[in-house]
Amino acid sequence: MSGPVTLGIDVGGTKILGLAMNGEGEILAEAKVATPRVVPAEGSGETGGDDVIEAIGDVADQLRLALGGDGGRLSGVGVGVPGLVDDDGMLSFAPNLPGGEGLDVGGRVRERLGGLKVVVDNDATCAVVGEWIYGAATGVTDAVVVTLGTGIGGGLIVNNRVTRGAHGFAGEIGHMVVDPSGPSCPCGKRGCWERFASGSGLGRLAREAAHAGRLDDVLRSVGGDPEAVRGEDVTAAAAAGDVTAQVVLEELGWWLALGLANLANLLDPSLFVLGGGLVEALDLVLEPVRTAFDDLVEGRHRRPEVMICLARLGERAGAVGAGVLARRDGRALFVRSD
Amino acid sequence: MSGPVTLGIDVGGTKILGLAMNGEGEILAEAKVATPRVVPAEGSGETGGDDVIEAIGDVADQLRLALGGDGGRLSGVGVGVPGLVDDDGMLSFAPNLPGGEGLDVGGRVRERLGGLKVVVDNDATCAVVGEWIYGAATGVTDAVVVTLGTGIGGGLIVNNRVTRGAHGFAGEIGHMVVDPSGPSCPCGKRGCWERFASGSGLGRLAREAAHAGRLDDVLRSVGGDPEAVRGEDVTAAAAAGDVTAQVVLEELGWWLALGLANLANLLDPSLFVLGGGLVEALDLVLEPVRTAFDDLVEGRHRRPEVMICLARLGERAGAVGAGVLARRDGRALFVRSD
Repeated sequence: MSGPVTLGIDVGGTKILGLAMNGEGEILAEAKVATPRVVPAEGSGETGGDDVIEAIGDVADQLRLALGGDGGRLSGVGVGVPGLVDDDGMLSFAPNLPGGEGLDVGGRVRERLGGLKVVVDNDATCAVVGEWIYGAATGVTDAVVVTLGTGIGGGLIVNNRVTRGAHGFAGEIGHMVVDPSGPSCPCGKRGCWERFASGSGLGRLAREAAHAGRLDDVLRSVGGDPEAVRGEDVTAAAAAGDVTAQVVLEELGWWLALGLANLANLLDPSLFVLGGGLVEALDLVLEPVRTAFDDLVEGRHRRPEVMICLARLGERAGAVGAGVLARRDGRALFVRSD
Repeated sequence: MSGPVTLGIDVGGTKILGLAMNGEGEILAEAKVATPRVVPAEGSGETGGDDVIEAIGDVADQLRLALGGDGGRLSGVGVGVPGLVDDDGMLSFAPNLPGGEGLDVGGRVRERLGGLKVVVDNDATCAVVGEWIYGAATGVTDAVVVTLGTGIGGGLIVNNRVTRGAHGFAGEIGHMVVDPSGPSCPCGKRGCWERFASGSGLGRLAREAAHAGRLDDVLRSVGGDPEAVRGEDVTAAAAAGDVTAQVVLEELGWWLALGLANLANLLDPSLFVLGGGLVEALDLVLEPVRTAFDDLVEGRHRRPEVMICLARLGERAGAVGAGVLARRDGRALFVRSD
């Protein structure tokens, strides 16, 4: 075991996943808790967030305990959060973490952990760093990591650099509008990509199919109420060979391919890496996704093939990337050096 | 007058605009011809393109004639073309230049001009180089130049570099699908952004409005046939104060803002530069575009303002950028050096 030890903590819409890693990217310990809902303290006039900070602190404590004597080599903590993060670690917009807006994640976690170095970044940016340094995108100069969970996050590698844009807000690919008359989104718009191609999008497509009588077996298994059908039910049924469930997953796959084609037309990456909690479902329809992508990308017969693969680090990509970012001072433009 | 002289030639869907410039970006001469339609020679089994190559040659000849004695200092020719261009100057996909696919623009123009150095690039990439070096985006590290003509082209500055992607095809922003059930596009898909927010999009919106009885005065002015209404008629009427025409332009502006918001969510630029033949119309609705953009971009109250301005070089941006690129050897990654 060599080099400094860091913690990487990924705050998702439903769970907080943390790990401790050494300088070679080896995972030394892992911990997980459910994400508390952030509710402003009543009458305080302030944005809440105590529970989320405390949950992040819990995960860090569990990891430090697991590290035992190695905890002394701990050099920093990286935290990935679902939303827009400014350079000071302030969560400035978080449609998938209701109430989290305005939460000073960096300052609060630093205080909770007794002054340890804390680096905060967007969760999808963390995932792209993880996959780029230790995962499926190693050595690629232009790649997009698409994190499919409750929503859709994006991490961009452009010209061999992690790309944050002018203000650190780049990669909010889930809120690319793909149907202005589509379903409304917590962000305030209609028809954002993540209304169709995310975990919540799958749930919506599944309930639509159930209402339309296209998911009889799944519907029976949940007691007959179409509103009780969840995305997970469809994924499980499809994995077990239910053709009607596979059709719903292919519908999800088409919407995924539509957004990927848009991104390919814009950024011309050589690789898409698909990660997040939805990868299990996507693994079942990866071929239809590739076929639909080829059909939707501009000039498909004239351009080199764009690879679409699953994240090698799986659900850990964000936490691994957060751990990598914790090695660095601040959030300076991240250029791959090895 | 100092430094080498180059020619920049911008091949648009309707006209070919060329200029001669010196090393300081001063324009020494200008020439323009209509774009011939590219039709494969009958029975030849080959892709046509002789007429386009000859028209580019004509423009170059006119410029060399105008340069007189300075023609001896001519060091290269840059050509911007509407479509995907590979590193060898081959036009590999060109939905807005029918029949142009597979045309070896670089080799053919080089031959036509007696072996002069010829650099070929995407027209919107040329426009972004022009605006970045001599126009509205000078000094900006993250910007998107949106070229609104027959279609919509895009040029990207990311991390202070012109961005071409993994294969040189980045910036095809016009074919970002924003409504999968929308009107069909020459590229083969439905609901591409340029079906709504380009010159041809304006024509379509105008004819829809005329059919719906919303453009009575404009309709009278073209003889009463809704199918005869063109985008230019609406722009002229709006400029003269016709409120129904202004409403159609605002509709165009809303679709423009939708795509800009998508791009802002993805790339987080600090500046959008709007160029191309449609800028005259857009100038009339720039405030509504800004308002709609603020309404559509994610986290609008939480992020620094994104500037939206008109191209300073106007319709010349592409030709100026082509002239700048002609100073260089090949299409190596273009990093701003001054």
